[in-house]
Amino acid sequence: MTDRHTVKTGIVQHSFLSDIETNRARNLSGIANLAAEGAELIVLSELHDSLYFCQTENVDNFELASEIPGDFTDFYSAAAAENDVVLVASSFERRAPGLYHNTAVVFEKDGSIAGIYRKMHIPDDPGFYEKFYFTPGDLGFKPIDTSVGRIGVLVCWDQWYPEAARLMAMAGAEILVYPTAIGWNPDDPADEKERQLNAWITIQRSHAVANGIPVVSVNRCGFEEDPSGQTSGIDFWGTSFIAGPQGELLYKAPEDRPEEAAIEIDLGRSENVRRWWPFLRDRRIDAYTGLSKRFLLK
Amino acid sequence: MTDRHTVKTGIVQHSFLSDIETNRARNLSGIANLAAEGAELIVLSELHDSLYFCQTENVDNFELASEIPGDFTDFYSAAAAENDVVLVASSFERRAPGLYHNTAVVFEKDGSIAGIYRKMHIPDDPGFYEKFYFTPGDLGFKPIDTSVGRIGVLVCWDQWYPEAARLMAMAGAEILVYPTAIGWNPDDPADEKERQLNAWITIQRSHAVANGIPVVSVNRCGFEEDPSGQTSGIDFWGTSFIAGPQGELLYKAPEDRPEEAAIEIDLGRSENVRRWWPFLRDRRIDAYTGLSKRFLLK
Repeated sequence: MTDRHTVKTGIVQHSFLSDIETNRARNLSGIANLAAEGAELIVLSELHDSLYFCQTENVDNFELASEIPGDFTDFYSAAAAENDVVLVASSFERRAPGLYHNTAVVFEKDGSIAGIYRKMHIPDDPGFYEKFYFTPGDLGFKPIDTSVGRIGVLVCWDQWYPEAARLMAMAGAEILVYPTAIGWNPDDPADEKERQLNAWITIQRSHAVANGIPVVSVNRCGFEEDPSGQTSGIDFWGTSFIAGPQGELLYKAPEDRPEEAAIEIDLGRSENVRRWWPFLRDRRIDAYTGLSKRFLLK
Repeated sequence: MTDRHTVKTGIVQHSFLSDIETNRARNLSGIANLAAEGAELIVLSELHDSLYFCQTENVDNFELASEIPGDFTDFYSAAAAENDVVLVASSFERRAPGLYHNTAVVFEKDGSIAGIYRKMHIPDDPGFYEKFYFTPGDLGFKPIDTSVGRIGVLVCWDQWYPEAARLMAMAGAEILVYPTAIGWNPDDPADEKERQLNAWITIQRSHAVANGIPVVSVNRCGFEEDPSGQTSGIDFWGTSFIAGPQGELLYKAPEDRPEEAAIEIDLGRSENVRRWWPFLRDRRIDAYTGLSKRFLLK
């Protein structure tokens, strides 16, 4: 663990096709470009090797999954090692026949696996049928130690849960990282789209505020049609961003096109921010047991 | 409890002086004005009967406290009844000799006390010496039933804790209400002031997002000097606001001057918002026990 240091962090926001090799080439190009800019930590978006296949429930899609270690980790391990970066990648993990997870894999600069995080909160709503594919994670909220810091990796739907961010911070995370795949229903009116995008930014910035640590969120962009034709598809809204430990925006990508960006994040600023706003000091842990209940009213 | 209804909600943002009668007259005028506009629920700011006395630690300030029931509740009970409104007021409660709380009192339209909430999270930082004055609340996070809905009242420093908002929502709160007193150190540079104000707005909007319910936050405005002369005083930043259940801003007051505003809030929209973004459905209550710990790393 290192203290009071700056980490140049790279964001790879891309759109994807059905061809896995093309997607991998896009991600690899992004990693190489950002490493050349000096990025030491690079974050890919969620399930970046494929289209967002959860738009339908189709058993054939389980063919996209890969064991850990396996083909997926072989490829991104080499990408991390060749570019000498810590890499946060997002896989469709085949753990056993009929047992699959949505799993982030963090690679050390030498290509070794620093740790994995299995998505704990699994969504399910029209066009996002993730409960069909992914068993909820069973590793809990444990940050992953790397040479650039202790990283609290959470995935997409987790971003709506302050509990997840808090537990990562309490376990020592110095930075929160969210690979994600979220977008608009093209049929929604502009004001609803605006509310959704702002809610998504607001809740993740709030995790930075509540915990006094930076947040990195990386989304895909581009339109993907619904193979079933039942919906109008998903217009992934990009807008990958980085917030500092007061929730202040350090960087925001465009909504509608690929972007790669390398941004300096000062992990040392958390010490000062938490001294002035010592929220961890005053938590009422004697009164929080209800948080482990489903509901308290009835 | 009522369902699917709109509540016209009044915000009283004022500046205050050392003279309590003047402050009460300002608050009462605000209540009457907003009631005349049709407000059914009116929210005052924190400790609105006095200057923000916590800038110094002075035993004489305990004279400002009032028992419940007592002089404070007599006055605001009459204000609620005369104007036929549900009123959220904020008192310095004298519970026993040497035992004081920062206590919100909610009055029903007939002037009866619907319930009280004792501030659970107590801050203490230069200029905000609240731990000297206020014993942390012992009533937990229990919303208060009123004729306009079930109100989750929290106070100021509570606003930084997602745990508090979540527990109120889980106990059935239909709306979160934060009386507050927060401002800038005039010596801070403009960029720091901007980060603080935005963090304060962001974290409270995030409680709306995470829980799918509206949030009302009412702050005082105006400059108050530090009686000790040790600091440059506090420039209270106003900016009282209302957010809808997706965190969208419905109203925001100016930073630097008093304002009274009555805004329609549709409590029925939460049903629809929570159907589309069913965060309560997917909480990992099997993995949240760590939230009742102080820290998890060591």
